[in-house]
Amino acid sequence: MKYGIIGYSGRMGQEIKRLFSESGHELVYKKDEDGVEVIETPELLIDFSLREVFPETIKIVKEQEVPLIIGTTGLTVSDFEMLKDLAEDLPVIQSFNFSIGINILSELVKKVNQYVDEDWDIEISETHHRFKKDKPSGTAIMLGDLIDRDLEMHSKRLGSEFGEHEVDFASTGEVLTLKHRAYSREAFSRGVLMSAEKILDLDAGLYSFKDILNK
Amino acid sequence: MKYGIIGYSGRMGQEIKRLFSESGHELVYKKDEDGVEVIETPELLIDFSLREVFPETIKIVKEQEVPLIIGTTGLTVSDFEMLKDLAEDLPVIQSFNFSIGINILSELVKKVNQYVDEDWDIEISETHHRFKKDKPSGTAIMLGDLIDRDLEMHSKRLGSEFGEHEVDFASTGEVLTLKHRAYSREAFSRGVLMSAEKILDLDAGLYSFKDILNK
Amino acid sequence: MKYGIIGYSGRMGQEIKRLFSESGHELVYKKDEDGVEVIETPELLIDFSLREVFPETIKIVKEQEVPLIIGTTGLTVSDFEMLKDLAEDLPVIQSFNFSIGINILSELVKKVNQYVDEDWDIEISETHHRFKKDKPSGTAIMLGDLIDRDLEMHSKRLGSEFGEHEVDFASTGEVLTLKHRAYSREAFSRGVLMSAEKILDLDAGLYSFKDILNK
Amino acid sequence: MKYGIIGYSGRMGQEIKRLFSESGHELVYKKDEDGVEVIETPELLIDFSLREVFPETIKIVKEQEVPLIIGTTGLTVSDFEMLKDLAEDLPVIQSFNFSIGINILSELVKKVNQYVDEDWDIEISETHHRFKKDKPSGTAIMLGDLIDRDLEMHSKRLGSEFGEHEVDFASTGEVLTLKHRAYSREAFSRGVLMSAEKILDLDAGLYSFKDILNK
Repeated sequence: MKYGIIGYSGRMGQEIKRLFSESGHELVYKKDEDGVEVIETPELLIDFSLREVFPETIKIVKEQEVPLIIGTTGLTVSDFEMLKDLAEDLPVIQSFNFSIGINILSELVKKVNQYVDEDWDIEISETHHRFKKDKPSGTAIMLGDLIDRDLEMHSKRLGSEFGEHEVDFASTGEVLTLKHRAYSREAFSRGVLMSAEKILDLDAGLYSFKDILNK
Repeated sequence: MKYGIIGYSGRMGQEIKRLFSESGHELVYKKDEDGVEVIETPELLIDFSLREVFPETIKIVKEQEVPLIIGTTGLTVSDFEMLKDLAEDLPVIQSFNFSIGINILSELVKKVNQYVDEDWDIEISETHHRFKKDKPSGTAIMLGDLIDRDLEMHSKRLGSEFGEHEVDFASTGEVLTLKHRAYSREAFSRGVLMSAEKILDLDAGLYSFKDILNK
Repeated sequence: MKYGIIGYSGRMGQEIKRLFSESGHELVYKKDEDGVEVIETPELLIDFSLREVFPETIKIVKEQEVPLIIGTTGLTVSDFEMLKDLAEDLPVIQSFNFSIGINILSELVKKVNQYVDEDWDIEISETHHRFKKDKPSGTAIMLGDLIDRDLEMHSKRLGSEFGEHEVDFASTGEVLTLKHRAYSREAFSRGVLMSAEKILDLDAGLYSFKDILNK
Repeated sequence: MKYGIIGYSGRMGQEIKRLFSESGHELVYKKDEDGVEVIETPELLIDFSLREVFPETIKIVKEQEVPLIIGTTGLTVSDFEMLKDLAEDLPVIQSFNFSIGINILSELVKKVNQYVDEDWDIEISETHHRFKKDKPSGTAIMLGDLIDRDLEMHSKRLGSEFGEHEVDFASTGEVLTLKHRAYSREAFSRGVLMSAEKILDLDAGLYSFKDILNK
């Protein structure tokens, strides 16, 4: 497919380009803070840029009239209104986390939570590289929100660990552990690739990445 | 509740007695190779004995006309016919593995298997105490059967490990690990207790432990 | 060998009896709060009782004139003076932790600590059953004291976990993890057995379990 | 320092350049299959190239008369003779594995091996990315050679795992696990950097990386 990236020189922009090239897709539209380069009209646009340029992203997508995959963080309620508006005419896939594994993990956590009663202990642990300041990680908080109780969270900061999350469920008889580790940014770009491969067949509408995963 | 155990002096018989006593239930019927002791008519019977005495178990349950929970291993196809026959009049719960965690794990493995395509690697590992001869464990084989492909299995034999099973799913971007460890036989007796607490409210019929877990 | 136990009916007393019997040793002297039973003069005495009866233990050992292995916790500085005094005439092995694995682990932690500089992250984690109140565990604190810096400690309280300790050392290139898990009280009774098998050949003196392990 | 790389465009050459630049060192000599670029005379040479060009490496080092760090694999007995010869006049550090963590791990494995008798189970596991063909890994074999017995080895091939090794030691009472994971090639370049920072103070002689680590 022929695709475009808004936020092309960012880390995710570069990683998406790498994986999509490897998979035989052609980058025909690049935009970043230094400007825009249009080789050809893209079949879809992927936005991993900054909240600040969100209004411009919307404008571009409307002009190009192509489906949008957006992973930019920090979107506000009114930004989501603009996405819904856009999604009346075009397919739009929005997520704050395009990792296939993390999205499966959160489905599993919800499932286990249905089975275990209050007599099971539940704790969440996460390990990230030493430069990550916030504790616990956003993903750990998201996982905790899936469970109907307050629970202990443990945050290790070690070396260059890209990102590991673990949820433990224990009764006095046994312990069940669900663990996810991302090797690299490819954990996210693979989810973007899966989205890109499906978006051209979608009807107009606003989709989460979980919608795509469940198709 | 007032309950009975067939196979009372076996390891599972003893463990069931321990946990049920702790939970306030009363053992009123005990049977093992040395004979039978009847204090009172039980409200239900639990059989963790040997395949050899299965016909006798059936006879006893018919006489007592009470629900049956059975975890005896090695049952044959014709034994299952007898259970079905019995289940026309009484609730019968049969399973070869009453661990809540292993049964949840197998649900999770099936779920992940739906999400991941052939580009994900899947391997199964298990660790058991040094005295366990068979490799891989029956549970590892059961987990492998849930996945639509041949896969590598790894069996460690270490110390006194009661039983650990792990399934790894990995793409080139990330790895998802589902792991279960039984602390002791209580992993199984807790499932028997859950079954006992539900069986008095069940209609006649043959149930798996997974049916009970999903109620 | 013929041995005696002070604190016979305690959990460690019972576990020592179990393992020593299995290894062909003969219990000829038992003492607990209910009294004393002397079948024969023991070749050595093992004390896993309470600090409160320590003066009595000393008196008994002096009377019997046999080597002593003592794992009673809460000993004071003046108690150690009494042990030193006793050790002028008899071999005495004292430790607060007779686990072979934990003692090896602490040797390893000291060794790694010599190799890694301040550019390595170090964190300690421990997991114990839900009924353990103190956080972090005494063993985690002991391990932390072997490392020349303040460090993060993580304490999980899950199910029936007997006791797991982990020390992580990470640079931006790699991570080294040292982990110990006790399956049961046998982690400690095996160290007592090793001590008992060596004490009859020792000269008078006060020994730590690490001294015994290093012989 | 001012340093040179033989095998500059290889993966390790590039990684060494990256880390050394970050640490403020200056690359003044580059050699690869396409030729040589000399900006200035280096203070030391680092060779991560191919066995085939080893004789040429020796010739270059003799001409430049500077210390050598060499991590090229596949060296023969007669190559080592040439290194010894060179080391009469210059410091030479040779290793097939410059990972600090793996070298510490092998010291720890030797230490634990001294403590545990034949009643302990020992098994080795390793996990590498799906493209690694050889099983078990060379490092796993090296670790196994440190232990005086035959033992089970387990090799997982999962996703993009850069390289994980684990050694388990278990008695019936407890299990001790030593585990190493490399995040990236930086696991090796950090050891090369440590070597470079020490080599200028060394006397002539042939050193292993373990010699450097132990200084």
